[in-house]
Amino acid sequence: MARLVMKFGGTSVGTVERIKNVALKVKREVDAGHEVAVVVSAMSGDTNRLVDLVSDVSVLHDAREYDVVVSSGEQVTIGLLSLALQGLGVSARSWLGWQIPVQTNAVHGAARIENIDCTEIIKRFEDQQVAVCAGFQGIGSDNRITTLGRGGSDTSAVALAAALKADRCDIYTDVDGIYTADPRIATKAAKLDKITYEEMLELASLGAKVLQTRSVEMAMKHRVKLQVLSSFEDLPGTLVVDEEDIVEQQVVSGVTYTRDEAKVTLQQVADRPGMAALVFGALADANINVDMIVQNVSEDGKATDLTFTVGRKEMNQALAVLDQLKDKAACRAIVPDPNVVKVSIVGMGMRSHSGVAKIMFSALAEKGINIQVISTSEIKVSVLLAEEYTELAVRTLHTAFGLDAA
Amino acid sequence: MARLVMKFGGTSVGTVERIKNVALKVKREVDAGHEVAVVVSAMSGDTNRLVDLVSDVSVLHDAREYDVVVSSGEQVTIGLLSLALQGLGVSARSWLGWQIPVQTNAVHGAARIENIDCTEIIKRFEDQQVAVCAGFQGIGSDNRITTLGRGGSDTSAVALAAALKADRCDIYTDVDGIYTADPRIATKAAKLDKITYEEMLELASLGAKVLQTRSVEMAMKHRVKLQVLSSFEDLPGTLVVDEEDIVEQQVVSGVTYTRDEAKVTLQQVADRPGMAALVFGALADANINVDMIVQNVSEDGKATDLTFTVGRKEMNQALAVLDQLKDKAACRAIVPDPNVVKVSIVGMGMRSHSGVAKIMFSALAEKGINIQVISTSEIKVSVLLAEEYTELAVRTLHTAFGLDAA
Repeated sequence: MARLVMKFGGTSVGTVERIKNVALKVKREVDAGHEVAVVVSAMSGDTNRLVDLVSDVSVLHDAREYDVVVSSGEQVTIGLLSLALQGLGVSARSWLGWQIPVQTNAVHGAARIENIDCTEIIKRFEDQQVAVCAGFQGIGSDNRITTLGRGGSDTSAVALAAALKADRCDIYTDVDGIYTADPRIATKAAKLDKITYEEMLELASLGAKVLQTRSVEMAMKHRVKLQVLSSFEDLPGTLVVDEEDIVEQQVVSGVTYTRDEAKVTLQQVADRPGMAALVFGALADANINVDMIVQNVSEDGKATDLTFTVGRKEMNQALAVLDQLKDKAACRAIVPDPNVVKVSIVGMGMRSHSGVAKIMFSALAEKGINIQVISTSEIKVSVLLAEEYTELAVRTLHTAFGLDAA
Repeated sequence: MARLVMKFGGTSVGTVERIKNVALKVKREVDAGHEVAVVVSAMSGDTNRLVDLVSDVSVLHDAREYDVVVSSGEQVTIGLLSLALQGLGVSARSWLGWQIPVQTNAVHGAARIENIDCTEIIKRFEDQQVAVCAGFQGIGSDNRITTLGRGGSDTSAVALAAALKADRCDIYTDVDGIYTADPRIATKAAKLDKITYEEMLELASLGAKVLQTRSVEMAMKHRVKLQVLSSFEDLPGTLVVDEEDIVEQQVVSGVTYTRDEAKVTLQQVADRPGMAALVFGALADANINVDMIVQNVSEDGKATDLTFTVGRKEMNQALAVLDQLKDKAACRAIVPDPNVVKVSIVGMGMRSHSGVAKIMFSALAEKGINIQVISTSEIKVSVLLAEEYTELAVRTLHTAFGLDAA
């Protein structure tokens, strides 16, 4: 007997038929003798509908009221799934965030879970009752509903698994696992049986959209064994595990990309101390995150180009902030470029293999792809390229690191 | 300065534009210096959508999960209305049933309010904050969401007004008040400026759909001054008040009708003691309410016809119950007739005026309308007629009792 958390996203509960299908999957685990808690998102499209209603009513909205409105979607799916389970003869009841309770801080719209009290849920496990829990929501110290930000149901599931000391947290989604690259681009991409927390974290933050980054962080911290698998097919998925659970570690486990960034270049900025602090301080004050940064050494010691990336959606806001600094920074021009892609390779094996970056740069150079910015960490190398090279670059790197399926 | 409860039904908050219109109406009361609590229903159509989802998932549903699903509609409207008020510069916050809290018994799907703790809401009145409260919902002793039954938001509003000791409870709806008859049938129907609780209670239970019957009972019990008025037009409505607040009492205040009943006749039932107990006991055991009853004296002391009405939706179920009694009651035949209408006249003045029933029966007889069953109380007379006479009977009685507008 194991204790399991099963999480189903919006597309998995998007219709009554699909909810009934989810109930069958849950019943199978119950019939196998497991203790089961289920976490569900709102029906696909429902959260967008609610967000649109809020936007239609007011532009500047009170995040507390936003949370009241958007959290109602999960209230519908927990009730319906509980009913579907009961229809199959499985004992089940729904739990809203405030009923469990899932205590969060009071940062409405992007709250963080502080504590989950599972006493009542565990008590009911003894009666073989399934706990059907609303993802995405909690209750703040102000006794009001909070939400965890888009994709927050993954985090709800992992946090619940940690609190329940569950044997595994299964994330059911519309893909059947984690791939070495996006299979729509790299047709030779292969599904990974296992991946380390560290690699999954990098992949999630570098563009893989399967899991919310915060949920992976939390799984890593609490050593929750995660599995990503399909809601619609009956196949084994990908396990996210500790490094020691992987016998043969590849140098590179995956290639990923994101088009969510934009490049900004400040041309011929005065080359004197304090310039970087001036520019990035102003952006930070405006709550704009800067990701990659490159500054050339100036030839004459007087002026140099400063290039960095920001979220593509925040580019215009960033340009407005920078425009006010233009004189102080004495730069010649501010050149934005939204048509860029960040392509990354990720792998634990990099730590013990030198020359990984060289292979990456050579492979791209051979195809005539120019690298605009580079950033690295212990287990990843990211490059910024012109957006038109996205598919070519992903396929080239997938081949170069021996990831192509036989 | 007064303390007001304003209640808006589903059509009044059916779109974002209408919600903004509601916000303007609330703002006007706030600007006039009043303390305001608002009670809202779900957007029109939303509760039906949620009920349909529940029905699609399971036929025999757990009422506790039904309540979780259907109560989510009000959660959306309280958030949106709070945002709309804030957008107009009015301080406002939303309150869910469990937050206030509105304590109910645990009869899910048809709960009754036991207590409302208004402490927090009243505290915030001092800061001119509007309380935007979810109608239709409460919290049971099991710490789970309960709902009050369809139309329950009227009851929520009246109960809140009683708990707040509000000066008035304004029920905004899609008609502009209580009429002497349905204006779609009786074109000469007039809006009443005032009506007594007792009359309103009879009208609501005899077919007038403007207010939920239970909300009128509660208003009468707690002496909450009710006003029914239009969400869309800026007109005075109808006040529901104590008898002494009405200077000139009409003999008959209104004519109403309902097509929700069906007639059942047991022909030639054995005329011996215990027969009525047998028949109505069996129906009661099946939770079928019987309304009007008439039993003729038998000519020969051996057998007689027994006629009564049940809800039209329950007619088939009633027939199944009766069929099993057929031999025991020794009746010749069971004859159902769903094509009937109950037309009623209501008025406090009847108590001191004799001859009201005679005027009613004569007026109907003059038009050739046959009366099938009669029932009376202190302030109403109801007759059961063939359904095809509905409009003619309503208009005839409206004229006969001098209610036609000049």
